[in-house]
Amino acid sequence: MTNAHGTLYGLGIGPGDPELMTLKAHRILQSVPVVAYPAPEDGDSLARAIAAPHLAGGQTEIVIRTPMTPGNFPANDVYDRYAAEISEHLNAGRNVAVLCEGDPFLYGSFMYLFQRLSGGYQTEVVPGVSSLGAVAAAAGRPLVSRNQVLSILPAPLEEAELERRITDSDACAIMKVGRHLDKVKRVLARLGLDGGAVYVEHASMPDEKILPLRDVGTDAAPYFSMVLVNRQGRGV
Amino acid sequence: MTNAHGTLYGLGIGPGDPELMTLKAHRILQSVPVVAYPAPEDGDSLARAIAAPHLAGGQTEIVIRTPMTPGNFPANDVYDRYAAEISEHLNAGRNVAVLCEGDPFLYGSFMYLFQRLSGGYQTEVVPGVSSLGAVAAAAGRPLVSRNQVLSILPAPLEEAELERRITDSDACAIMKVGRHLDKVKRVLARLGLDGGAVYVEHASMPDEKILPLRDVGTDAAPYFSMVLVNRQGRGV
Repeated sequence: MTNAHGTLYGLGIGPGDPELMTLKAHRILQSVPVVAYPAPEDGDSLARAIAAPHLAGGQTEIVIRTPMTPGNFPANDVYDRYAAEISEHLNAGRNVAVLCEGDPFLYGSFMYLFQRLSGGYQTEVVPGVSSLGAVAAAAGRPLVSRNQVLSILPAPLEEAELERRITDSDACAIMKVGRHLDKVKRVLARLGLDGGAVYVEHASMPDEKILPLRDVGTDAAPYFSMVLVNRQGRGV
Repeated sequence: MTNAHGTLYGLGIGPGDPELMTLKAHRILQSVPVVAYPAPEDGDSLARAIAAPHLAGGQTEIVIRTPMTPGNFPANDVYDRYAAEISEHLNAGRNVAVLCEGDPFLYGSFMYLFQRLSGGYQTEVVPGVSSLGAVAAAAGRPLVSRNQVLSILPAPLEEAELERRITDSDACAIMKVGRHLDKVKRVLARLGLDGGAVYVEHASMPDEKILPLRDVGTDAAPYFSMVLVNRQGRGV
Protein backbone atom coordinates (compact mmCIF):
# COMPACT_ATOMS: atom_id res chain seq x y z
CA MET A 1 0.00 0.00 0.00
CA THR A 2 1.86 3.10 -1.17
CA ASN A 3 0.72 6.67 -1.32
CA ALA A 4 0.90 6.52 -5.06
CA HIS A 5 -2.05 4.16 -5.09
CA GLY A 6 -5.60 5.39 -5.47
CA THR A 7 -8.31 4.95 -2.85
CA LEU A 8 -11.22 2.58 -3.27
CA TYR A 9 -14.59 3.94 -2.17
CA GLY A 10 -17.68 1.84 -1.49
CA LEU A 11 -20.20 4.58 -2.00
CA GLY A 12 -23.70 4.17 -0.60
CA ILE A 13 -25.86 6.23 -2.93
CA GLY A 14 -29.20 5.59 -1.28
CA PRO A 15 -32.42 3.79 -2.12
CA GLY A 16 -33.41 5.40 -5.41
CA ASP A 17 -34.21 9.10 -5.16
CA PRO A 18 -31.01 10.85 -6.27
CA GLU A 19 -31.66 13.46 -3.57
CA LEU A 20 -31.32 10.75 -0.90
CA MET A 21 -27.58 10.58 -1.58
CA THR A 22 -25.44 11.97 1.23
CA LEU A 23 -23.41 15.14 0.89
CA LYS A 24 -20.31 13.00 1.34
CA ALA A 25 -21.16 10.51 -1.37
CA HIS A 26 -21.99 13.44 -3.64
CA ARG A 27 -18.60 15.07 -3.03
CA ILE A 28 -16.68 11.85 -3.62
CA LEU A 29 -18.75 10.93 -6.65
CA GLN A 30 -17.88 14.23 -8.29
CA SER A 31 -14.18 14.02 -7.43
CA VAL A 32 -13.20 10.53 -8.59
CA PRO A 33 -11.87 9.84 -12.08
CA VAL A 34 -13.29 6.29 -12.14
CA VAL A 35 -16.81 5.14 -11.28
CA ALA A 36 -17.88 1.49 -11.18
CA TYR A 37 -21.41 0.17 -10.70
CA PRO A 38 -23.34 -3.09 -10.83
CA ALA A 39 -25.72 -3.86 -13.65
CA PRO A 40 -27.70 -6.89 -14.68
CA GLU A 41 -26.29 -9.07 -17.44
CA ASP A 42 -28.51 -7.24 -19.89
CA GLY A 43 -30.08 -3.90 -19.24
CA ASP A 44 -29.54 -0.71 -17.33
CA SER A 45 -27.87 -0.13 -13.99
CA LEU A 46 -30.11 1.23 -11.23
CA ALA A 47 -27.04 2.52 -9.40
CA ARG A 48 -25.97 4.52 -12.42
CA ALA A 49 -29.46 5.95 -12.81
CA ILE A 50 -29.43 7.12 -9.19
CA ALA A 51 -26.03 8.74 -9.63
CA ALA A 52 -26.67 10.17 -13.10
CA PRO A 53 -27.79 13.68 -12.04
CA HIS A 54 -24.62 14.01 -9.97
CA LEU A 55 -21.91 12.64 -12.27
CA ALA A 56 -19.16 15.10 -13.06
CA GLY A 57 -18.84 14.07 -16.70
CA GLY A 58 -15.71 12.75 -18.34
CA GLN A 59 -15.33 10.00 -15.75
CA THR A 60 -14.24 6.50 -16.72
CA GLU A 61 -17.11 4.08 -16.10
CA ILE A 62 -16.80 0.39 -15.29
CA VAL A 63 -20.05 -1.55 -15.68
CA ILE A 64 -19.95 -4.56 -13.36
CA ARG A 65 -22.18 -7.04 -15.15
CA THR A 66 -22.91 -10.04 -12.98
CA PRO A 67 -24.89 -12.99 -14.25
CA MET A 68 -27.54 -14.20 -11.78
CA THR A 69 -26.85 -17.86 -12.40
CA PRO A 70 -28.38 -20.07 -9.71
CA GLY A 71 -25.68 -22.08 -8.00
CA ASN A 72 -22.99 -19.68 -9.05
CA PHE A 73 -23.51 -16.85 -6.60
CA PRO A 74 -21.48 -14.90 -5.89
CA ALA A 75 -19.90 -15.29 -9.30
CA ASN A 76 -16.34 -15.46 -8.07
CA ASP A 77 -14.74 -15.49 -11.49
CA VAL A 78 -16.66 -12.37 -12.44
CA TYR A 79 -15.67 -10.49 -9.27
CA ASP A 80 -12.06 -11.60 -9.71
CA ARG A 81 -12.06 -10.06 -13.14
CA TYR A 82 -13.61 -6.75 -12.06
CA ALA A 83 -11.32 -6.55 -9.02
CA ALA A 84 -8.39 -6.86 -11.39
CA GLU A 85 -9.76 -4.13 -13.64
CA ILE A 86 -10.29 -1.81 -10.65
CA SER A 87 -6.80 -2.64 -9.35
CA GLU A 88 -5.24 -1.34 -12.51
CA HIS A 89 -6.78 2.08 -11.89
CA LEU A 90 -5.80 2.04 -8.20
CA ASN A 91 -2.25 1.02 -9.09
CA ALA A 92 -2.07 3.96 -11.46
CA GLY A 93 -3.05 6.27 -8.58
CA ARG A 94 -6.63 6.83 -9.66
CA ASN A 95 -9.39 6.81 -7.03
CA VAL A 96 -12.29 4.50 -7.83
CA ALA A 97 -15.83 4.82 -6.45
CA VAL A 98 -17.99 1.71 -6.56
CA LEU A 99 -21.62 2.87 -6.48
CA CYS A 100 -23.85 0.86 -4.15
CA GLU A 101 -27.64 1.06 -4.10
CA GLY A 102 -28.81 1.68 -0.55
CA ASP A 103 -26.09 0.93 1.96
CA PRO A 104 -22.92 -0.90 0.82
CA PHE A 105 -22.90 -3.41 3.68
CA LEU A 106 -26.58 -4.35 3.91
CA TYR A 107 -26.92 -7.14 1.34
CA GLY A 108 -24.71 -5.19 -1.06
CA SER A 109 -22.59 -6.85 -3.73
CA PHE A 110 -19.81 -4.38 -2.96
CA MET A 111 -18.64 -6.74 -0.25
CA TYR A 112 -17.30 -9.12 -2.91
CA LEU A 113 -14.99 -6.40 -4.21
CA PHE A 114 -14.20 -5.23 -0.68
CA GLN A 115 -13.06 -8.78 0.16
CA ARG A 116 -10.70 -8.81 -2.79
CA LEU A 117 -9.32 -5.28 -2.64
CA SER A 118 -9.44 -3.84 0.89
CA GLY A 119 -6.35 -5.76 1.97
CA GLY A 120 -4.19 -4.15 -0.67
CA TYR A 121 -5.60 -0.67 -1.09
CA GLN A 122 -6.78 2.21 1.06
CA THR A 123 -10.53 1.61 1.23
CA GLU A 124 -13.34 3.77 2.57
CA VAL A 125 -16.94 2.67 2.90
CA VAL A 126 -19.47 5.50 2.89
CA PRO A 127 -22.77 4.39 4.43
CA GLY A 128 -25.96 5.25 2.59
CA VAL A 129 -29.69 5.44 3.24
CA SER A 130 -30.91 1.86 3.04
CA SER A 131 -34.12 0.66 1.47
CA LEU A 132 -35.21 -0.23 5.00
CA GLY A 133 -35.48 3.41 6.06
CA ALA A 134 -36.90 4.45 2.70
CA VAL A 135 -39.65 1.84 2.82
CA ALA A 136 -40.65 2.76 6.37
CA ALA A 137 -40.71 6.46 5.46
CA ALA A 138 -42.77 5.83 2.33
CA ALA A 139 -45.26 3.71 4.24
CA GLY A 140 -45.40 6.07 7.21
CA ARG A 141 -44.65 3.10 9.44
CA PRO A 142 -42.07 3.18 12.22
CA LEU A 143 -39.95 0.02 12.01
CA VAL A 144 -39.27 -0.52 15.71
CA SER A 145 -39.27 1.41 18.93
CA ARG A 146 -37.94 1.05 22.44
CA ASN A 147 -36.71 -2.51 23.07
CA GLN A 148 -38.44 -4.17 20.16
CA VAL A 149 -36.49 -6.67 18.09
CA LEU A 150 -36.37 -6.12 14.34
CA SER A 151 -35.72 -9.09 12.09
CA ILE A 152 -34.50 -8.49 8.59
CA LEU A 153 -35.62 -11.50 6.64
CA PRO A 154 -34.81 -12.30 3.02
CA ALA A 155 -37.99 -13.54 1.35
CA PRO A 156 -36.18 -16.44 -0.34
CA LEU A 157 -36.01 -18.22 3.05
CA GLU A 158 -37.95 -21.47 3.15
CA GLU A 159 -41.60 -21.12 4.08
CA ALA A 160 -41.39 -22.85 7.47
CA GLU A 161 -38.27 -20.92 8.39
CA LEU A 162 -39.88 -17.63 7.39
CA GLU A 163 -42.95 -18.46 9.45
CA ARG A 164 -40.91 -19.39 12.50
CA ARG A 165 -38.90 -16.20 12.37
CA ILE A 166 -41.87 -13.92 11.82
CA THR A 167 -43.61 -15.57 14.77
CA ASP A 168 -40.57 -14.89 16.93
CA SER A 169 -40.16 -11.18 16.06
CA ASP A 170 -41.74 -7.98 17.29
CA ALA A 171 -41.26 -6.51 13.85
CA CYS A 172 -39.95 -7.74 10.51
CA ALA A 173 -38.78 -6.28 7.28
CA ILE A 174 -39.12 -8.96 4.61
CA MET A 175 -36.78 -8.03 1.80
CA LYS A 176 -36.26 -9.05 -1.83
CA VAL A 177 -39.90 -10.16 -2.03
CA GLY A 178 -39.94 -10.48 -5.82
CA ARG A 179 -41.19 -13.88 -6.92
CA HIS A 180 -41.69 -14.94 -3.29
CA LEU A 181 -44.74 -12.69 -2.86
CA ASP A 182 -47.25 -15.56 -2.79
CA LYS A 183 -45.30 -17.37 -0.09
CA VAL A 184 -44.98 -14.22 2.02
CA LYS A 185 -48.72 -13.52 1.72
CA ARG A 186 -49.58 -17.10 2.62
CA VAL A 187 -47.37 -17.12 5.73
CA LEU A 188 -48.65 -13.80 7.02
CA ALA A 189 -52.26 -14.79 6.42
CA ARG A 190 -51.71 -18.01 8.35
CA LEU A 191 -50.30 -16.00 11.24
CA GLY A 192 -53.13 -13.48 11.12
CA LEU A 193 -50.63 -10.73 10.42
CA ASP A 194 -51.53 -9.91 6.84
CA GLY A 195 -54.09 -7.29 7.85
CA GLY A 196 -51.48 -5.01 9.36
CA ALA A 197 -48.70 -5.69 6.87
CA VAL A 198 -47.72 -3.15 4.28
CA TYR A 199 -46.14 -3.73 0.87
CA VAL A 200 -43.79 -1.22 -0.75
CA GLU A 201 -42.02 -1.42 -4.08
CA HIS A 202 -39.45 0.98 -5.52
CA ALA A 203 -39.44 3.16 -2.40
CA SER A 204 -38.44 6.78 -3.08
CA MET A 205 -38.48 6.24 -6.85
CA PRO A 206 -40.94 7.71 -9.34
CA ASP A 207 -42.74 4.36 -9.64
CA GLU A 208 -43.02 3.89 -5.86
CA LYS A 209 -46.04 1.81 -4.86
CA ILE A 210 -47.43 1.43 -1.33
CA LEU A 211 -50.29 -0.96 -0.59
CA PRO A 212 -51.77 -2.85 2.31
CA LEU A 213 -50.44 -6.36 1.69
CA ARG A 214 -53.97 -7.73 1.35
CA ASP A 215 -54.59 -5.48 -1.65
CA VAL A 216 -51.53 -6.67 -3.56
CA GLY A 217 -52.28 -8.99 -6.47
CA THR A 218 -50.54 -12.32 -6.76
CA ASP A 219 -48.43 -11.35 -9.73
CA ALA A 220 -44.70 -11.41 -9.14
CA ALA A 221 -43.43 -8.36 -7.34
CA PRO A 222 -40.25 -6.62 -8.47
CA TYR A 223 -37.01 -7.64 -6.77
CA PHE A 224 -36.87 -4.29 -4.98
CA SER A 225 -39.99 -4.76 -2.92
CA MET A 226 -40.42 -5.20 0.79
CA VAL A 227 -43.11 -6.13 3.29
CA LEU A 228 -43.18 -4.57 6.75
CA VAL A 229 -44.85 -6.28 9.68
CA ASN A 230 -45.17 -4.99 13.21
CA ARG A 231 -47.15 -7.03 15.70
CA GLN A 232 -47.94 -3.96 17.71
CA GLY A 233 -49.75 -2.29 14.89
CA ARG A 234 -47.98 0.83 13.87
CA GLY A 235 -44.62 0.22 15.46
CA VAL A 236 -45.06 2.45 18.48
CA MET B 1 -55.83 19.76 6.63
CA THR B 2 -55.84 22.95 4.59
CA ASN B 3 -53.22 24.37 2.29
CA ALA B 4 -52.64 27.19 4.72
CA HIS B 5 -51.08 24.74 7.16
CA GLY B 6 -47.37 24.09 7.27
CA THR B 7 -45.77 20.72 6.55
CA LEU B 8 -44.19 18.58 9.26
CA TYR B 9 -40.90 16.95 8.28
CA GLY B 10 -39.28 14.05 10.12
CA LEU B 11 -35.78 14.68 8.94
CA GLY B 12 -33.22 11.88 9.14
CA ILE B 13 -29.92 13.71 9.53
CA GLY B 14 -27.66 10.68 9.72
CA PRO B 15 -25.46 9.02 12.32
CA GLY B 16 -23.16 11.85 13.37
CA ASP B 17 -20.90 13.12 10.61
CA PRO B 18 -22.68 16.24 9.27
CA GLU B 19 -21.56 15.20 5.78
CA LEU B 20 -23.64 12.01 6.08
CA MET B 21 -26.81 14.07 5.80
CA THR B 22 -28.70 13.58 2.53
CA LEU B 23 -28.99 16.29 -0.08
CA LYS B 24 -32.74 16.26 0.56
CA ALA B 25 -32.47 16.70 4.33
CA HIS B 26 -29.97 19.49 3.71
CA ARG B 27 -32.34 21.30 1.35
CA ILE B 28 -35.30 21.01 3.70
CA LEU B 29 -33.22 21.94 6.75
CA GLN B 30 -32.18 25.16 5.10
CA SER B 31 -35.66 26.04 3.89
CA VAL B 32 -37.80 25.63 7.02
CA PRO B 33 -38.50 28.49 9.42
CA VAL B 34 -38.80 26.17 12.43
CA VAL B 35 -36.43 23.41 13.53
CA ALA B 36 -37.12 21.07 16.47
CA TYR B 37 -34.73 18.50 17.94
CA PRO B 38 -34.45 16.15 20.89
CA ALA B 39 -32.09 16.84 23.75
CA PRO B 40 -31.48 15.25 27.11
CA GLU B 41 -33.06 16.88 30.14
CA ASP B 42 -29.78 18.65 30.78
CA GLY B 43 -27.09 19.10 28.20
CA ASP B 44 -26.57 19.48 24.51
CA SER B 45 -28.50 17.99 21.63
CA LEU B 46 -26.57 15.62 19.39
CA ALA B 47 -29.08 16.21 16.61
CA ARG B 48 -28.46 19.94 16.75
CA ALA B 49 -24.71 19.40 16.69
CA ILE B 50 -25.04 17.28 13.54
CA ALA B 51 -27.19 19.89 11.86
CA ALA B 52 -25.23 22.93 13.08
CA PRO B 53 -22.96 23.37 10.04
CA HIS B 54 -26.01 23.36 7.79
CA LEU B 55 -28.50 25.60 9.64
CA ALA B 56 -29.62 28.61 7.67
CA GLY B 57 -29.54 30.97 10.63
CA GLY B 58 -32.48 32.94 11.97
CA GLN B 59 -34.60 29.81 12.34
CA THR B 60 -36.87 29.30 15.33
CA GLU B 61 -35.57 26.39 17.39
CA ILE B 62 -37.63 24.10 19.61
CA VAL B 63 -35.58 21.99 22.01
CA ILE B 64 -37.50 18.81 22.82
CA ARG B 65 -36.26 17.96 26.29
CA THR B 66 -37.40 14.53 27.34
CA PRO B 67 -36.69 13.13 30.77
CA MET B 68 -35.46 9.53 30.69
CA THR B 69 -37.51 8.48 33.69
CA PRO B 70 -37.73 4.72 34.00
CA GLY B 71 -41.34 3.59 33.90
CA ASN B 72 -42.42 6.77 32.14
CA PHE B 73 -41.28 6.09 28.62
CA PRO B 74 -42.32 7.43 26.27
CA ALA B 75 -43.13 10.49 28.33
CA ASN B 76 -46.58 11.04 26.93
CA ASP B 77 -47.24 14.30 28.71
CA VAL B 78 -43.99 15.72 27.37
CA TYR B 79 -44.71 14.68 23.78
CA ASP B 80 -48.25 16.05 24.08
CA ARG B 81 -46.83 19.42 25.06
CA TYR B 82 -44.26 19.56 22.25
CA ALA B 83 -46.83 18.36 19.72
CA ALA B 84 -49.00 21.29 20.77
CA GLU B 85 -46.11 23.72 20.41
CA ILE B 86 -45.29 22.37 16.94
CA SER B 87 -48.99 22.51 15.98
CA GLU B 88 -49.07 26.21 16.59
CA HIS B 89 -46.37 26.76 14.00
CA LEU B 90 -48.04 24.39 11.53
CA ASN B 91 -51.40 26.13 12.06
CA ALA B 92 -49.72 29.42 11.27
CA GLY B 93 -48.50 27.99 7.97
CA ARG B 94 -44.91 27.50 9.01
CA ASN B 95 -43.10 24.30 7.99
CA VAL B 96 -41.42 22.49 10.87
CA ALA B 97 -38.50 20.05 10.57
CA VAL B 98 -37.95 17.65 13.45
CA LEU B 99 -34.31 16.57 13.34
CA CYS B 100 -33.77 12.86 13.89
CA GLU B 101 -30.40 11.25 14.53
CA GLY B 102 -29.88 8.36 12.13
CA ASP B 103 -33.12 7.30 10.53
CA PRO B 104 -36.44 8.65 11.91
CA PHE B 105 -38.19 5.28 12.01
CA LEU B 106 -35.44 3.02 13.40
CA TYR B 107 -35.80 3.45 17.17
CA GLY B 108 -36.35 7.16 16.68
CA SER B 109 -38.32 9.29 19.14
CA PHE B 110 -39.83 11.16 16.18
CA MET B 111 -42.49 8.46 16.02
CA TYR B 112 -44.10 9.89 19.17
CA LEU B 113 -44.64 13.22 17.41
CA PHE B 114 -45.58 11.47 14.17
CA GLN B 115 -48.32 9.60 16.06
CA ARG B 116 -49.74 12.82 17.39
CA LEU B 117 -49.43 15.07 14.34
CA SER B 118 -49.47 13.08 11.10
CA GLY B 119 -53.24 12.67 11.17
CA GLY B 120 -53.82 16.42 11.16
CA TYR B 121 -50.99 17.81 9.08
CA GLN B 122 -49.18 17.11 5.85
CA THR B 123 -46.21 15.04 7.03
CA GLU B 124 -43.13 13.87 5.19
CA VAL B 125 -40.55 11.49 6.61
CA VAL B 126 -37.10 11.78 5.04
CA PRO B 127 -35.05 8.63 5.65
CA GLY B 128 -31.49 9.02 6.85
CA VAL B 129 -28.30 7.00 7.13
CA SER B 130 -28.76 4.85 10.22
CA SER B 131 -26.15 4.03 12.80
CA LEU B 132 -26.37 0.46 11.51
CA GLY B 133 -24.77 1.33 8.19
CA ALA B 134 -22.35 3.75 9.82
CA VAL B 135 -21.11 1.16 12.31
CA ALA B 136 -20.63 -1.48 9.63
CA ALA B 137 -18.76 0.99 7.42
CA ALA B 138 -16.54 2.12 10.30
CA ALA B 139 -15.73 -1.45 11.25
CA GLY B 140 -15.21 -2.58 7.66
CA ARG B 141 -17.67 -5.38 8.33
CA PRO B 142 -20.49 -6.31 5.98
CA LEU B 143 -23.68 -6.77 8.01
CA VAL B 144 -25.33 -9.52 5.99
CA SER B 145 -25.18 -11.01 2.55
CA ARG B 146 -27.25 -13.25 0.33
CA ASN B 147 -30.04 -14.92 2.33
CA GLN B 148 -28.64 -14.31 5.80
CA VAL B 149 -30.98 -13.12 8.53
CA LEU B 150 -30.01 -9.96 10.40
CA SER B 151 -31.39 -9.45 13.90
CA ILE B 152 -31.41 -5.99 15.34
CA LEU B 153 -31.33 -6.50 19.07
CA PRO B 154 -31.58 -3.80 21.73
CA ALA B 155 -28.98 -4.56 24.41
CA PRO B 156 -31.47 -3.93 27.25
CA LEU B 157 -33.15 -7.27 26.44
CA GLU B 158 -32.90 -9.79 29.24
CA GLU B 159 -29.78 -11.92 29.21
CA ALA B 160 -31.46 -15.23 28.38
CA GLU B 161 -33.52 -13.60 25.66
CA LEU B 162 -30.47 -11.92 24.16
CA GLU B 163 -28.61 -15.24 24.18
CA ARG B 164 -31.45 -17.11 22.56
CA ARG B 165 -31.79 -14.55 19.79
CA ILE B 166 -28.08 -14.32 19.06
CA THR B 167 -27.94 -18.12 18.86
CA ASP B 168 -30.75 -18.08 16.34
CA SER B 169 -29.31 -15.42 14.00
CA ASP B 170 -26.80 -15.47 11.16
CA ALA B 171 -25.81 -11.95 12.08
CA CYS B 172 -26.75 -9.46 14.79
CA ALA B 173 -26.43 -5.80 15.45
CA ILE B 174 -26.71 -5.25 19.19
CA MET B 175 -27.73 -1.65 19.71
CA LYS B 176 -27.82 0.80 22.61
CA VAL B 177 -25.09 -1.18 24.38
CA GLY B 178 -24.36 1.49 26.98
CA ARG B 179 -24.51 0.11 30.48
CA HIS B 180 -25.35 -3.37 29.14
CA LEU B 181 -21.80 -3.92 27.86
CA ASP B 182 -20.90 -6.48 30.51
CA LYS B 183 -23.97 -8.55 29.80
CA VAL B 184 -23.35 -8.46 26.05
CA LYS B 185 -19.72 -9.51 26.52
CA ARG B 186 -20.75 -12.33 28.85
CA VAL B 187 -23.36 -13.71 26.47
CA LEU B 188 -21.08 -13.61 23.44
CA ALA B 189 -18.22 -15.23 25.36
CA ARG B 190 -20.54 -18.03 26.47
CA LEU B 191 -21.53 -18.60 22.85
CA GLY B 192 -17.92 -18.52 21.66
CA LEU B 193 -18.75 -15.54 19.46
CA ASP B 194 -16.82 -12.82 21.25
CA GLY B 195 -13.67 -13.43 19.23
CA GLY B 196 -15.27 -12.31 16.00
CA ALA B 197 -17.44 -9.55 17.44
CA VAL B 198 -16.61 -5.91 16.91
CA TYR B 199 -17.48 -2.95 19.12
CA VAL B 200 -18.07 0.54 17.72
CA GLU B 201 -18.96 3.72 19.54
CA HIS B 202 -19.82 7.11 18.07
CA ALA B 203 -19.57 5.84 14.50
CA SER B 204 -18.72 8.56 11.97
CA MET B 205 -18.06 11.11 14.74
CA PRO B 206 -14.70 12.64 15.72
CA ASP B 207 -14.55 10.42 18.82
CA GLU B 208 -15.36 7.24 16.88
CA LYS B 209 -13.86 4.14 18.48
CA ILE B 210 -13.62 0.68 16.88
CA LEU B 211 -12.33 -2.31 18.85
CA PRO B 212 -12.50 -6.08 18.81
CA LEU B 213 -15.08 -6.75 21.54
CA ARG B 214 -12.52 -8.71 23.56
CA ASP B 215 -10.34 -5.61 23.86
CA VAL B 216 -13.11 -3.43 25.26
CA GLY B 217 -12.82 -2.70 28.97
CA THR B 218 -15.72 -3.38 31.25
CA ASP B 219 -16.50 0.27 31.92
CA ALA B 220 -19.88 1.41 30.78
CA ALA B 221 -20.05 2.13 27.10
CA PRO B 222 -21.81 5.24 25.79
CA TYR B 223 -25.45 4.87 24.78
CA PHE B 224 -24.50 5.23 21.12
CA SER B 225 -22.43 2.09 20.90
CA MET B 226 -23.07 -1.11 19.01
CA VAL B 227 -21.70 -4.62 18.75
CA LEU B 228 -21.73 -6.49 15.45
CA VAL B 229 -21.69 -10.26 15.29
CA ASN B 230 -21.59 -12.43 12.20
CA ARG B 231 -21.29 -16.19 12.60
CA GLN B 232 -19.74 -16.52 9.20
CA GLY B 233 -16.81 -14.34 10.07
CA ARG B 234 -16.76 -11.26 7.95
CA GLY B 235 -20.30 -11.30 6.72
CA VAL B 236 -19.59 -12.69 3.31
